[in-house]
Amino acid sequence: MAEKKRVGILGASGYTGAELVRLLLRHPRVQIALLTADRRAGQAMGDVYPQFAPYDLPRLVAIDDVDWAAEKLDLIFCALPHATTQKVLKDVLEKAPDTKIVDLSADFRLEDPAVYAKWYGHEHHALELQKEAVYGLVEFYRRDIRKARLVANPGCYTTTAQLPLIPLLKAKAIETDEIVIDAASGMTGAGRSAREEMLFSEVSDGFNAYGVGHHRHMSELDQEFSKAAGKEVIATFTPHLAPMNRGIFATIYVRGRRGKTAQDLHEILVKQYEKEPFVYVLPFGKTPHSRHVRGSNMTFIGVANDRQPGRAIIVSTLDNLTKGASGQAVQNMNAMLGFPETTGIDQAPMFP
Amino acid sequence: MAEKKRVGILGASGYTGAELVRLLLRHPRVQIALLTADRRAGQAMGDVYPQFAPYDLPRLVAIDDVDWAAEKLDLIFCALPHATTQKVLKDVLEKAPDTKIVDLSADFRLEDPAVYAKWYGHEHHALELQKEAVYGLVEFYRRDIRKARLVANPGCYTTTAQLPLIPLLKAKAIETDEIVIDAASGMTGAGRSAREEMLFSEVSDGFNAYGVGHHRHMSELDQEFSKAAGKEVIATFTPHLAPMNRGIFATIYVRGRRGKTAQDLHEILVKQYEKEPFVYVLPFGKTPHSRHVRGSNMTFIGVANDRQPGRAIIVSTLDNLTKGASGQAVQNMNAMLGFPETTGIDQAPMFP
Amino acid sequence: MAEKKRVGILGASGYTGAELVRLLLRHPRVQIALLTADRRAGQAMGDVYPQFAPYDLPRLVAIDDVDWAAEKLDLIFCALPHATTQKVLKDVLEKAPDTKIVDLSADFRLEDPAVYAKWYGHEHHALELQKEAVYGLVEFYRRDIRKARLVANPGCYTTTAQLPLIPLLKAKAIETDEIVIDAASGMTGAGRSAREEMLFSEVSDGFNAYGVGHHRHMSELDQEFSKAAGKEVIATFTPHLAPMNRGIFATIYVRGRRGKTAQDLHEILVKQYEKEPFVYVLPFGKTPHSRHVRGSNMTFIGVANDRQPGRAIIVSTLDNLTKGASGQAVQNMNAMLGFPETTGIDQAPMFP
Amino acid sequence: MAEKKRVGILGASGYTGAELVRLLLRHPRVQIALLTADRRAGQAMGDVYPQFAPYDLPRLVAIDDVDWAAEKLDLIFCALPHATTQKVLKDVLEKAPDTKIVDLSADFRLEDPAVYAKWYGHEHHALELQKEAVYGLVEFYRRDIRKARLVANPGCYTTTAQLPLIPLLKAKAIETDEIVIDAASGMTGAGRSAREEMLFSEVSDGFNAYGVGHHRHMSELDQEFSKAAGKEVIATFTPHLAPMNRGIFATIYVRGRRGKTAQDLHEILVKQYEKEPFVYVLPFGKTPHSRHVRGSNMTFIGVANDRQPGRAIIVSTLDNLTKGASGQAVQNMNAMLGFPETTGIDQAPMFP
Repeated sequence: MAEKKRVGILGASGYTGAELVRLLLRHPRVQIALLTADRRAGQAMGDVYPQFAPYDLPRLVAIDDVDWAAEKLDLIFCALPHATTQKVLKDVLEKAPDTKIVDLSADFRLEDPAVYAKWYGHEHHALELQKEAVYGLVEFYRRDIRKARLVANPGCYTTTAQLPLIPLLKAKAIETDEIVIDAASGMTGAGRSAREEMLFSEVSDGFNAYGVGHHRHMSELDQEFSKAAGKEVIATFTPHLAPMNRGIFATIYVRGRRGKTAQDLHEILVKQYEKEPFVYVLPFGKTPHSRHVRGSNMTFIGVANDRQPGRAIIVSTLDNLTKGASGQAVQNMNAMLGFPETTGIDQAPMFP
Repeated sequence: MAEKKRVGILGASGYTGAELVRLLLRHPRVQIALLTADRRAGQAMGDVYPQFAPYDLPRLVAIDDVDWAAEKLDLIFCALPHATTQKVLKDVLEKAPDTKIVDLSADFRLEDPAVYAKWYGHEHHALELQKEAVYGLVEFYRRDIRKARLVANPGCYTTTAQLPLIPLLKAKAIETDEIVIDAASGMTGAGRSAREEMLFSEVSDGFNAYGVGHHRHMSELDQEFSKAAGKEVIATFTPHLAPMNRGIFATIYVRGRRGKTAQDLHEILVKQYEKEPFVYVLPFGKTPHSRHVRGSNMTFIGVANDRQPGRAIIVSTLDNLTKGASGQAVQNMNAMLGFPETTGIDQAPMFP
Repeated sequence: MAEKKRVGILGASGYTGAELVRLLLRHPRVQIALLTADRRAGQAMGDVYPQFAPYDLPRLVAIDDVDWAAEKLDLIFCALPHATTQKVLKDVLEKAPDTKIVDLSADFRLEDPAVYAKWYGHEHHALELQKEAVYGLVEFYRRDIRKARLVANPGCYTTTAQLPLIPLLKAKAIETDEIVIDAASGMTGAGRSAREEMLFSEVSDGFNAYGVGHHRHMSELDQEFSKAAGKEVIATFTPHLAPMNRGIFATIYVRGRRGKTAQDLHEILVKQYEKEPFVYVLPFGKTPHSRHVRGSNMTFIGVANDRQPGRAIIVSTLDNLTKGASGQAVQNMNAMLGFPETTGIDQAPMFP
Repeated sequence: MAEKKRVGILGASGYTGAELVRLLLRHPRVQIALLTADRRAGQAMGDVYPQFAPYDLPRLVAIDDVDWAAEKLDLIFCALPHATTQKVLKDVLEKAPDTKIVDLSADFRLEDPAVYAKWYGHEHHALELQKEAVYGLVEFYRRDIRKARLVANPGCYTTTAQLPLIPLLKAKAIETDEIVIDAASGMTGAGRSAREEMLFSEVSDGFNAYGVGHHRHMSELDQEFSKAAGKEVIATFTPHLAPMNRGIFATIYVRGRRGKTAQDLHEILVKQYEKEPFVYVLPFGKTPHSRHVRGSNMTFIGVANDRQPGRAIIVSTLDNLTKGASGQAVQNMNAMLGFPETTGIDQAPMFP
């Protein structure tokens, strides 16, 4: 077997960092050569995530202490908080321009700098890189991703909503001004930050909406939905928090266009995904649970009739840390490094 | 203080039965005189719900063994499974016609026997009583309830959706053909029946929709929404299960009519409920958590702008066992027996 | 009815503060006249705990801004973090010496200043008050509590362990050198502080021990067990965290002394508690769930045979926020202010 | 690569069956050739566990319909309920005597038929096979397992307790009459049977002991502990249920023998397991969480000082479905079929 590729993870102390380690530890074609975590620099990964204590992993270092050229990394996963990524990656690519990068933040997902500035409240700090970046929804941008140096890994909510809706918008099968996306996320989607509203006792045994009417992920949906439809699409989207660790579950309400029924929409999705390894469309009328994809890179999609004539209800679910973040990032890596796309991310879901 | 009224609970071994016992144990105007539970007949209530072991409560009996006339009950709560109630109550009221009844099942909620037959798959067995029954959404039918002998306590999902929507429909403030109700329920809503899909390991750490497109509660919504709007209203409604015990949480998508904004809708609700003890409308733009009403008879409602011009997002939440079932039943009892409406159900919510 | 007593809550933004508000809102003999929360000063209680938004409550103030003499409080609940309490209460009692105080922290529980200094790492700052303080385990110190100005409310773990063990130690019915207390707590026991290890995703779907071999609560157990036994008793105690909000559950392993069997121990407990309103001893061989006391001021105790001859297993459970903290504090207040002991804390447990 | 071995799973509709499918789907040396589930016969595995719908798996059949000789299975995992296994396996081995078997039930774990009859209330139905069976705790019986035809996979509680205690008993390092094992299990340990006490609302947000003083697993512990110690050992053991899916967590109280300290015990365990792939001993004084082994075949063990001189507290945790059942079964299969022992079960734990 060929020599293993050297990969690094920036921001290894967050949940998406830990999920990358989990997946990459058993990936046959790469070795984890670098782990950064500024506030935990000097510690072992097993101090930050005790489940990794038995494994042989590099010690955590601070980003500023890394000699990018000397590390000779083939690929870097960047799992840093939104808005801190831009400067870091500019620096990395100046020092080691051949490094490939999968960025898990939102920093390079928006093509239009004005849109970025509007939603994030500041100018983009790496405009050249933003131009270069390829949007990493593999099922639709595979060809570009294979040639890309910098891939912007999509968000978890937006992946859940795009996989069922993009094919329908491309087929002009649904009305574009009546899309309602009602989505619930597990708590790992909020990261490992010590905030009062994320404490166990604030979250367990209850349910709530948040960011009602003004969630940042909307800009990513607007961009991709509008590209797919060939005209501006603004969907209604409400995120919720459910008392679970992993899982995004979206219930999507649409109206068929020009007589398209729910079954027509189902057929479009079945055809679209019949050869995709990570998207499974259930038989018509059946809908999945988020549990059925837990820990895997799968997306499960169901389509059913609404009782209102001409309308359909679509359900889509994935594991926010896997297909919604780190698993999709590895899928992107596989495409970028020329590995079979399922390498290292073909675990079956873990239920119960 | 006047003598305490004698009340009975039919179906005391279910969750709504237990919740009635919890509330009535500290109700100053009534005593629990009868508890039935056919399969647990002969046992103490503390055998079925150990939390009640320290309390002095009547032993469980079978319904067929009750001498209704001799019991001289002032009021009966009927918490039997849907469809079993009709014959039981016919019998009770033949033997003891002065007994007042609050029925927590769906059996007497639908006014039109044809609609009942369509959704429940069989003829109604107590048509006379169905005619007599008053729909027990106290905030809107208080006057009739005070004079009623038989009150049909509303469902938990439907109460959650009606409290925000009925005033808006009455005010003709929203379009009637674009209402989407996306709702999540805690597991106690499914009762205490031993079914595989309700096991802890099937439910925890996940989220799912069910009954997509064809849930029975829709018939109750259709009836009340149409009455309020003065024309036929068919709303889209999708129920979900969240891994929590108590709580219904509805996110409702509406379009304002004739230029009505989200703030206009908010104002209508604030005015409607400013004197109601059990409905609280949050300041505009804020939305509640289901946790904030846990264990209480409160409903919390929030209204926010949708990003789509002309549309609003309404959030409504209550505890399915309290305001969604047994608490509302006691509220009905209070109205029927002439007690102040908050008697015995004024506990503050329990969070965390 | 007599005028309501004026009570204050110092530290109203913590979980025990919120639980005090929940209980006192419906206490017929007191009114909440003061709420402090330094970091949330100026806010409404409904901003900090939205469940209280519909209630009429005083605005939160900073402790330093309170004029203790002018407030004319009859009683203060002090729910401040451990070690901050001493100076605050010294100040309060200098300005308003007639105020009665129930302190929920650990600051005044230890009678011996040297023991305090050893376990808490610093000298006690209010030695005079410490001498005056009465240990608030009502079931055993009722007479002293009625006359006390300052009551030190016991800890949640220690209450759970003391209620079954104190009577057995007093009766010299168990060996004192083989007591093993294995206890699990819900997360509210750790308070409302934003710490990484308390995040939902760090806590849910798992179980762990903590403070193994060196938990501070041991000093409180040592003191009370030794007093009860009339000689030094050092028990083994291991606390655990379970993924639940409320509940302490202790499984206690003891050896009967001089031929005492498990049934003998059971009999001692039954006799001890037959007239106590808040302690219920189950029939021999049965053991309770923590769910069966949730939200109530009850303690449930069970005793069973160990398979090792001469040994017994005792299970004891209570709600850490109620009988383990705020409920017991109200019980103490009731004793101090001459109310019937169950006033305002006689809610039935809430299960499910 | 050599041809894949053909394996079958009897009882594929239970949780241990599903966990076997999860692990074996990605095992490079075997193919799943047979799945039985009597009550679900004729259905697809994806009907019973929707997470497997996208995979190519044999349809479920009834045990009585299997032609054991024709199937030419190399190995069978038997995941049937306790007591049903004996007759089934006798039949299998008569028809296809070369089949190797890993039995996950308790049926073949007890060597002494009299002990079996005492704990299970009936005679053993396959005494010859019981004689032949090898106890499958791989870390201690590896040599026998490699040559065995029938391996009795240990129980989940007992594996958790044996891995830390067997080496200490063999070394005569602890007193044998003061062992207290206090253990909590996740709900999957109770299987997928629809019983009221296993419903979400009966289990969540609470904690309880069960089988206090008389749990069947004790017989397995007695047997193995006594063999290890060379004399009869009877440990105290109390199982508890925690509101989590996966995980067994045991807190074990022991007294060192002849001056052995907690550190001495730690050293024995470190030495015992330094080369074992599936047992990790933490640094002295540290204790693990059950979360840190979730989904993996790892056991994590910690040792700390008790505050009582001469005593130690040992914590041991594993995933009850993996190392506590199906993972250990695959580990046994690997040994029996001559594969490297970690094949297919080297996934890193999944946390969060």
